[in-house]
Amino acid sequence: MRAVHLEAGDVTLRNARKPRRHDGHALIKLIYGGICNTDIELRRGYYGFRGTPGHEFVGEVVEASNRGLIGKRVAGEINLACEHCEWCKRGLGRHCPHRTVLGIVKHPGAFADFLTLPERNLHILPRELPAEDAVFVEPLAAACEILDQVRIPKGAEVAVLGDGKLGLLIAQVLHAHGAVVHQYGRHREKLRISDRAGIEARVASKSPASAYDWLVDATGSPDGLQQAIRMTRPRGTVILKSTVHGLAAIDTAPVIVNELTLVGSRCGRFEPAIRLLRTGKVRVSEMISDVLPLDQAPQGFDLAERVGILKILLKA
Amino acid sequence: MRAVHLEAGDVTLRNARKPRRHDGHALIKLIYGGICNTDIELRRGYYGFRGTPGHEFVGEVVEASNRGLIGKRVAGEINLACEHCEWCKRGLGRHCPHRTVLGIVKHPGAFADFLTLPERNLHILPRELPAEDAVFVEPLAAACEILDQVRIPKGAEVAVLGDGKLGLLIAQVLHAHGAVVHQYGRHREKLRISDRAGIEARVASKSPASAYDWLVDATGSPDGLQQAIRMTRPRGTVILKSTVHGLAAIDTAPVIVNELTLVGSRCGRFEPAIRLLRTGKVRVSEMISDVLPLDQAPQGFDLAERVGILKILLKA
Repeated sequence: MRAVHLEAGDVTLRNARKPRRHDGHALIKLIYGGICNTDIELRRGYYGFRGTPGHEFVGEVVEASNRGLIGKRVAGEINLACEHCEWCKRGLGRHCPHRTVLGIVKHPGAFADFLTLPERNLHILPRELPAEDAVFVEPLAAACEILDQVRIPKGAEVAVLGDGKLGLLIAQVLHAHGAVVHQYGRHREKLRISDRAGIEARVASKSPASAYDWLVDATGSPDGLQQAIRMTRPRGTVILKSTVHGLAAIDTAPVIVNELTLVGSRCGRFEPAIRLLRTGKVRVSEMISDVLPLDQAPQGFDLAERVGILKILLKA
Repeated sequence: MRAVHLEAGDVTLRNARKPRRHDGHALIKLIYGGICNTDIELRRGYYGFRGTPGHEFVGEVVEASNRGLIGKRVAGEINLACEHCEWCKRGLGRHCPHRTVLGIVKHPGAFADFLTLPERNLHILPRELPAEDAVFVEPLAAACEILDQVRIPKGAEVAVLGDGKLGLLIAQVLHAHGAVVHQYGRHREKLRISDRAGIEARVASKSPASAYDWLVDATGSPDGLQQAIRMTRPRGTVILKSTVHGLAAIDTAPVIVNELTLVGSRCGRFEPAIRLLRTGKVRVSEMISDVLPLDQAPQGFDLAERVGILKILLKA
């Protein structure tokens, strides 16, 4: 089968052996994969990654222990947890210390003709949901995770910093939740997507100091957190959604003096994400910048890094 | 009257005019003042401070609008709030943006024969509480603030990093609350105070990774937060109690991947602090390294900066 290979910054297409399915796991035929910023970071050498990347996907189950899954179109949670440890017993397999992670940590990723995942990780997708849109289930779940972690009152003003893919999804999720979202970004084109969803989106030349009780940093920049801290009112909450590599220089004094709460936030449950897509409360089709065949994955990776580009899909 | 004066790193004793009492304010005769790490930082030039420092004190009210206060021995909350803004209306005058702060921000401090404070800031001290111990009400309230901000379950293991004055108070407060406290410090002598209070205190050559759901950083060091993050389990909470000046280099990746919560924590309510001292649940007398007359404030400041020294009291 075809499989994208990432090694030392190079993206190539290889001929690989079709993966063997273990009991309780499903063999899935890829329909679409989505290139995420994490994939771009893997290419830059973070985590010392080498292998098949890809953790955003929609596919069709072709083999499974649970025969009811066969032929179904699915998305899949990316953490392969042990199911036995304390975290797994608490329903937090996403934090299982023994986990592997699809296309990120020790489990071959989705950018190949076939992939495997535990059947319990799979979510059957509603028929009416276009496959292209369903690729967003995984990042949208990460956006929804915020609402599983903190209680943002309906009607509260929330600032979302960043207008990348994740920032746009977060803005829509919080808007759908009933928050009054102010999005701060740098790219007028990207912010128009939020505009059209009824979100107040601003090109952030100036951002107000001490103005919000709730902020989300999705800038992907080491400066983002510092800016968020500056914009937060006493006793306010900053949600950290940007994985920034290396050390960020933070002035902790305003965090302490203003008694801020900072909450790190990563992957989320798929159910609310699927619901938001199915009901049309979050719209993602405008966020697809291009669809390339899997064979053109190297070009897809190059394209995904360009300024102004949002989601690049790879079609199997 | 005598007043300590701090300017450009110099501590001197001056002759100053006795402060005038405004309506609703009390004139207080100093009994004891306590030198805090913040005072040492003010001396080092932080906040560009110039004037009379001192915010930990016990005094006797000599003039007041409320005549019931006259002759009473009091401690006093240090934030002078406007009483009209949104924060004040929420009972959070400590975050009032218009506040002045005793001995720190635009209100002359307690290291003088007399000081003034709004009467609403004062707490009449129980007779049975020694005046020397009552100087600790203010920093102890800051330690108690943690329990007003986060719900630490009784029986939970909590790591307290740092064995300075605040770290020792925090360890005792959390121990009295019913947490299982592990204190990590560098000074065997200081940690013995916690030992004797029944707290497990360790000289921190090695600290365990991913070991605690609850941590308090009271190291006063820019490395403390990074160490705390390393020691916290997924979904755990780090309380930031160290005011560190300048930028701290933080790796935010583990905060996000492990979905940690960081909570900045500053001043607290006096009531629980007075209760803990009155009932003997927190014992502070061992933390008094020396008592000097107010005239020797310059020597007191020098002494307070020395390694191994805990609280220096100034006696009026």
